[in-house]
Amino acid sequence: MLWSGWGDPAKAAPLPDAVTGLLRDLLGVRPSATPPARLADLKPPASRLPDAARAALAAVVGDAHVRTDDEARVRHTRGKSTPDLLRVRAGELSDAPDAVIMPGSHAEVQALLEACAAHRVAAVPFGGGTSVVGGLAPEGAAAFAAVVALDLRRMDALLELDEVSRTATLQPGLRGPRAEELLRARGYTLGHFPQSFEWATIGGFAAARSSGQASAGYGRFDEMVVALTAATPAGTLEAGRAPKSAAGPDLRQLLLGSEGAFGVITSVTVRVRPVPEAAAYEGWRFPDFATGAAALRRLAQDGPRPVVLRLSDEAETMVNLADPGAIGGGLSDASGCLAVVGFEGTPEEIEARRSAAAARLAEAGGTSLGAGPGEKWEHGRFNAPYMRDALLDVGAFVETLETAAFWSAIPALYAAVRDALTATLAGAGTPPLVMCHISHVYEAGASLYFTVVSAQGADDPLAHWAAAKHAANDAILAAGGTISHHHGVGTDHRDWYAREAGPLGTGVLRAVKDRLDPAGVLNPGVLIPPANPQE
Amino acid sequence: MLWSGWGDPAKAAPLPDAVTGLLRDLLGVRPSATPPARLADLKPPASRLPDAARAALAAVVGDAHVRTDDEARVRHTRGKSTPDLLRVRAGELSDAPDAVIMPGSHAEVQALLEACAAHRVAAVPFGGGTSVVGGLAPEGAAAFAAVVALDLRRMDALLELDEVSRTATLQPGLRGPRAEELLRARGYTLGHFPQSFEWATIGGFAAARSSGQASAGYGRFDEMVVALTAATPAGTLEAGRAPKSAAGPDLRQLLLGSEGAFGVITSVTVRVRPVPEAAAYEGWRFPDFATGAAALRRLAQDGPRPVVLRLSDEAETMVNLADPGAIGGGLSDASGCLAVVGFEGTPEEIEARRSAAAARLAEAGGTSLGAGPGEKWEHGRFNAPYMRDALLDVGAFVETLETAAFWSAIPALYAAVRDALTATLAGAGTPPLVMCHISHVYEAGASLYFTVVSAQGADDPLAHWAAAKHAANDAILAAGGTISHHHGVGTDHRDWYAREAGPLGTGVLRAVKDRLDPAGVLNPGVLIPPANPQE
Repeated sequence: MLWSGWGDPAKAAPLPDAVTGLLRDLLGVRPSATPPARLADLKPPASRLPDAARAALAAVVGDAHVRTDDEARVRHTRGKSTPDLLRVRAGELSDAPDAVIMPGSHAEVQALLEACAAHRVAAVPFGGGTSVVGGLAPEGAAAFAAVVALDLRRMDALLELDEVSRTATLQPGLRGPRAEELLRARGYTLGHFPQSFEWATIGGFAAARSSGQASAGYGRFDEMVVALTAATPAGTLEAGRAPKSAAGPDLRQLLLGSEGAFGVITSVTVRVRPVPEAAAYEGWRFPDFATGAAALRRLAQDGPRPVVLRLSDEAETMVNLADPGAIGGGLSDASGCLAVVGFEGTPEEIEARRSAAAARLAEAGGTSLGAGPGEKWEHGRFNAPYMRDALLDVGAFVETLETAAFWSAIPALYAAVRDALTATLAGAGTPPLVMCHISHVYEAGASLYFTVVSAQGADDPLAHWAAAKHAANDAILAAGGTISHHHGVGTDHRDWYAREAGPLGTGVLRAVKDRLDPAGVLNPGVLIPPANPQE
Repeated sequence: MLWSGWGDPAKAAPLPDAVTGLLRDLLGVRPSATPPARLADLKPPASRLPDAARAALAAVVGDAHVRTDDEARVRHTRGKSTPDLLRVRAGELSDAPDAVIMPGSHAEVQALLEACAAHRVAAVPFGGGTSVVGGLAPEGAAAFAAVVALDLRRMDALLELDEVSRTATLQPGLRGPRAEELLRARGYTLGHFPQSFEWATIGGFAAARSSGQASAGYGRFDEMVVALTAATPAGTLEAGRAPKSAAGPDLRQLLLGSEGAFGVITSVTVRVRPVPEAAAYEGWRFPDFATGAAALRRLAQDGPRPVVLRLSDEAETMVNLADPGAIGGGLSDASGCLAVVGFEGTPEEIEARRSAAAARLAEAGGTSLGAGPGEKWEHGRFNAPYMRDALLDVGAFVETLETAAFWSAIPALYAAVRDALTATLAGAGTPPLVMCHISHVYEAGASLYFTVVSAQGADDPLAHWAAAKHAANDAILAAGGTISHHHGVGTDHRDWYAREAGPLGTGVLRAVKDRLDPAGVLNPGVLIPPANPQE
């Protein structure tokens, strides 16, 4: 993973000159004057890890799996939000962990957490490092002797495949492609393809309630999880003896979304499905976003439910048309809104469902564009983060945010968030391009995924963005949306999450954390606001 | 609701003489010598409700909604398990609440809970009163000034129907039929039809994670809930701003299944669906239970998924054939195992799915019996509790229990529970008939629902059953099942639930309860074992 951006550096591609020109002419984007830092030149603050703590941690995992070298520490500094990238590119490494520890088993994680609690060392679980919400940058480090990243990469096995129950037990450090590879060798798939798929891990998918691009067919990751195990400073927690149970509150749902604040997820048992024989993705055009949204709602509620179902608004559609590699690339008509509709199964199943869906979509005002745009979408489905790097390189600011709500709240939510982003960024002198798509659908509602592009500006782009993001978050809550549909809470959304959960809901979460992590060493400041010192 | 049994006394029907004869000849069932108590003769212990507490409660709901008369107290004593019925029929009323309080709003419930906490009065939320796991019989009453039942019957409105999002917000005291009536008047259905449907309430469905007979098509009740509100002694808790969210742990899932121990659910927002045009239920026969279970698994995993999918084992099939009103009534061939397979939708949708499912079931060894048995099943689907009353009347003991597990664990779980029940009851001198069916299916597993019939015996039938139930619960945990698939925990399953959740899981639940109910007045002893006084 590129330390200063996304993914495999070999896959990076510069923007076409035409796009750079458009950015300059429309958004006032100018290349930055300061060249980005080089990894070899970066120097994190001196490691604070006390010798006694280091010895205790090394006693668990072995010396070779305790790293305090600069490169390891830089590579575990924060996540992959745009502010994270801009800060690390500027050499700002104040959040670098004091060490990186690589446990190899549940028992080792358990022992590490006990050692961390004993030595007042904060522990940040680290999977693919792809958090975009500050989930890897704990707060209040000064209150601890040190901060260590628990990198789970060594825990990357398929532990068990139960072909009768169609479940697989996976270790948390498995990255998406490797998990798929191990399952496909046995004829199965997880069907979980978030944009972070190539780098993110099973543990992260569970801890942050990831949702993949095929969620309409395969469900969200939290819906796939039938059992899990977590190591906590207070001991081991196991949940899930049956797909569904009436035995009390569902403790699985307390660990899903807990973002390392309650424990470290050390194994996840997920429902798997046979690899489908075939897949077919198709493009559709709707005259406008509202018409397209109503058509998606129709399929989500009445079926047949596609595996993939997404709809870009007018702005995103227009931009897509300018990108030859994107869904709209090569289409001559820039009007309306583009959708992707995908089916999987046997060719007969696909055809039956595709034609029934096509009838409903046409009735709802859609026009089929055939397989071309669908295939372009599939081909480029994991490329957006690379595109962001290229945009940052030429001096653009680009960031995403997302929410979800019930269908009846979607139109006002869409307008409110777009207005908040546009007004705040334009007010700061950087007129933005705000794009949106419906990325996930449910019977009762949908998610909205926003992308913002603007000039980084000569002064502080991070402050500009912080103001815009703050305004967008306020708008989301005011319009009845949830502060995150699939990115999670981290530290960035924490204060809005506390408003969403309410004081009593937050109190309940804090009571759970106090029980599982009495010393508060797990990912401090992530998910739950620190208790008011006056309390 | 009949105080000493189930439902509407006008619907009670005595057993046919042939059945009584069979019970006598095969199981040694003899009519009880003692005539059952009459409601007018029953005298609960004197109400302990202190005057100050009564005044505080009456100040909230008004005098007319505080009842301390014998009949109200008897009618709120325990639930509808067979031990509950045998005890109340014997005039054993030690668990009668000291008063019955009927709040009319969320604000009143909230104020009542605060008053209860202030006056050390234990509060038992009461919906339809249909718990079969001791959910209405709190423990440790002596530690409180009094115990009151909070009967939610006045909170029975459809608060909102959102036709765009297809959600309905319902009050907790709505009984199943009334909720359906209100929704159907607008063209919608909940699709939730548990056996307790006619009496149980929306609040109870949520608090106990109910699962209906059409769960294969409509999902469990906990899957329908998109938002809920609860009153707790510590304040109001609201959860659910979108169908799905990545904003932290799912607090809805902490209230679902909380059985009144964390708070009183005062409104539930559920996903609703348009009333289907038509429904078709069909009977199928399989040569044996294992073959039938494999066929159900095939449909659950590969589809097409029916709305109703159930399979009786050989013993239950044989008994069904002897009952003219049951699924097998009138069939001449008593061999093998009967299944019900039901579809809903337009006639075309039904036919397409029915024929695809039929091909798979036939391939898996099944033989269609046509619509007759399916229609008999549908007609009698809510009658089993009436049948139990009739069996109790003639001196038989009859009770049910249920569990769920992953598919790979089902065969051993089935054998272990059956063996545990048979061995314990036979050892006590009452050879039982143990029957089972698969009542609910999922991709990864299924539930098993057991019915036991034996003689009550001359000595203590409750002690016999307690030993058998204890053995069955141990067998369930040993074989990897969950202690309840849809009946819940209550006090009956509590100690096994604590084993299932583990000490740390139980500790987390206790931390949540301590936060929401610091005085411990909510349904004490239900769900979570009392903290060890030595701790």
